Amino acid sequence: MKKVILTGDRPTGRLHVGHYVGSLKERVRLQNTGEYDEIFIMIADAQALTDNADNPEKVRQNILQVALDYLACGLDPNKVHIFIQSMVPQLTELSFYYQNLVTVSRLQRNPTVKSEIQMRNFEASIPVGFFCYPISQAADITAFKATTVPAGEDQKPMIEQCCEIVHKFNSVYGETLVEPQIVLPQNAACLRLPGIDGKAKMSKSLGNCIYLSEEPEEIEKKVKSMFTDPNHLRVQDPGKVEGNPVFIYLDAFCRPEHFAEFWPEYQNLDEVKAHYQRGGLGDMKVKKFLNSVMQAELEPIRTRRKEWEQRLPEVVEILKEGSAYAEKTAAATLDEVRKAMRIDYFENGNLLK
Amino acid sequence: MKKVILTGDRPTGRLHVGHYVGSLKERVRLQNTGEYDEIFIMIADAQALTDNADNPEKVRQNILQVALDYLACGLDPNKVHIFIQSMVPQLTELSFYYQNLVTVSRLQRNPTVKSEIQMRNFEASIPVGFFCYPISQAADITAFKATTVPAGEDQKPMIEQCCEIVHKFNSVYGETLVEPQIVLPQNAACLRLPGIDGKAKMSKSLGNCIYLSEEPEEIEKKVKSMFTDPNHLRVQDPGKVEGNPVFIYLDAFCRPEHFAEFWPEYQNLDEVKAHYQRGGLGDMKVKKFLNSVMQAELEPIRTRRKEWEQRLPEVVEILKEGSAYAEKTAAATLDEVRKAMRIDYFENGNLLK
Repeated sequence: MKKVILTGDRPTGRLHVGHYVGSLKERVRLQNTGEYDEIFIMIADAQALTDNADNPEKVRQNILQVALDYLACGLDPNKVHIFIQSMVPQLTELSFYYQNLVTVSRLQRNPTVKSEIQMRNFEASIPVGFFCYPISQAADITAFKATTVPAGEDQKPMIEQCCEIVHKFNSVYGETLVEPQIVLPQNAACLRLPGIDGKAKMSKSLGNCIYLSEEPEEIEKKVKSMFTDPNHLRVQDPGKVEGNPVFIYLDAFCRPEHFAEFWPEYQNLDEVKAHYQRGGLGDMKVKKFLNSVMQAELEPIRTRRKEWEQRLPEVVEILKEGSAYAEKTAAATLDEVRKAMRIDYFENGNLLK
Repeated sequence: MKKVILTGDRPTGRLHVGHYVGSLKERVRLQNTGEYDEIFIMIADAQALTDNADNPEKVRQNILQVALDYLACGLDPNKVHIFIQSMVPQLTELSFYYQNLVTVSRLQRNPTVKSEIQMRNFEASIPVGFFCYPISQAADITAFKATTVPAGEDQKPMIEQCCEIVHKFNSVYGETLVEPQIVLPQNAACLRLPGIDGKAKMSKSLGNCIYLSEEPEEIEKKVKSMFTDPNHLRVQDPGKVEGNPVFIYLDAFCRPEHFAEFWPEYQNLDEVKAHYQRGGLGDMKVKKFLNSVMQAELEPIRTRRKEWEQRLPEVVEILKEGSAYAEKTAAATLDEVRKAMRIDYFENGNLLK
């Protein structure tokens, strides 16, 4: 069986370092393993519209931004198909038929949907499209016969829902769809990066993100303003590294070679942590190091992004080609789905049988 | 503005006299007024699948049956477009985007959906597709810019839901969709014909329908077995005509000319009713008359149906042409919808704007 990846992002804002360590970096790694027959990266505009129906312009404007972030991180259009969800209408048709295979109460029990509803303060006024998005996501995954979905722990219930739909479809209409598997990030620190203010979630409205497109001065300013251990008041006091955003960021970003280059006083991160914990190491020194590490990591990304920004019509062309390829693939799956459901009435005189 | 009709039926069984007096007869009349620019008659297989997902074969087998019933009643493929819902994939795409404009609680309040859920004993296990079908129906109506939807009183909440979606879409994305109006049957007796057993609803499983394809002997047998006034035990007793299925059927079917032909002892139905009410008129006499009336009405329908049954490939061709035309029309509307939502990214370099 072919090994196929499907993953993607909602285009509701530029991508930030949380996306980078949580998924983008891993995608580039997977792309370069050569182990996958096909990799589809979806810019999920249609999914973004399920809770941004009143503001389609925000979604529209962020499509190119997300595409630029992808290319900047090193996703290579010769190796992956980057496409726009709404440009593949077959996905809505699959969604439509999958909706018959899931009950309303099953959707209501989905923990991801539950917590996202809470996060958005939707309560009684959940848009139906948003409520149904686990089904739409199952359509996205199965349309490409994805075997592998790289995603965070919080997406597990979505993949379970998808597997249930696959199972139900195959048992009612015959073996057609492929069950996907989730692949979690390998590095625990990458599961979810907190905001620079220590809040669990980075969000544009909280102003606590460092974007991939951020300028060097801005990165420095943000790193220096980062939340640390609130009880670490004097340099000589012992400090805590657990739950301390500066150390979480270091866990995610710093590599052994960074020490020789930026902080030769230490061999590795464990030494820094030990010093911080026993007292005597000031926050500003650690932040200065983190700044150097992040500048080093983000500089080539920013440079590549600026190059692509000069070539926007080419970026559009990449999305167009990726979307055409995705549409062709989804159309082939939809044909199989229709055949399995026997709603291919006009093929081979099927309506007369 | 063009005058456009959209109406149709779920293909879950052959059509019966209830469908005939409730809608088919009226459709043929509307078709022949020449007042409408376009008439679309949809065989709603996709909608039927929302509560028959486990049994697609039942839906499939009934598509041709319903088409035959249409042609038998006098719907003329030169005047109306008869099409199969699932052959117009644009409808699922419209549904998908409309789902963002309706809340879950709004759907839960829909009285038609409420009572249909109860009727099907769905309770907690309502399929999402079934729950969402008012939205899908709005897609069907608006895809053809229907101005007129001939339907029964029970469909009013569905049309209201559609108008809400049109209003919301047009206010968020700009004037694009057309608000439909419901047209109720003119004859009160035609609103809903009871089963021959007096039950409010004709249904295949209750065996209380007279089908349009029924043979003469079968019609006679069913008419003679009809439920009447249970207190009208002896001929000389006074009988009730209200709620008496035999008289409801006569209200729906008999015309003044039938008396001269079949029962010259009476001038019109009022005289028959008066006699029945004051006593002295036996049920069998009334049933005999009803049988004559129904045989006269159904004979040409059955004959036409048998003719078409000999020409099934032509019927498939009619559905194919109707579906192609419907698809072309829905695609044009979808283009406008996508343009209004500005998800026409690859047109005119829109993504760069």
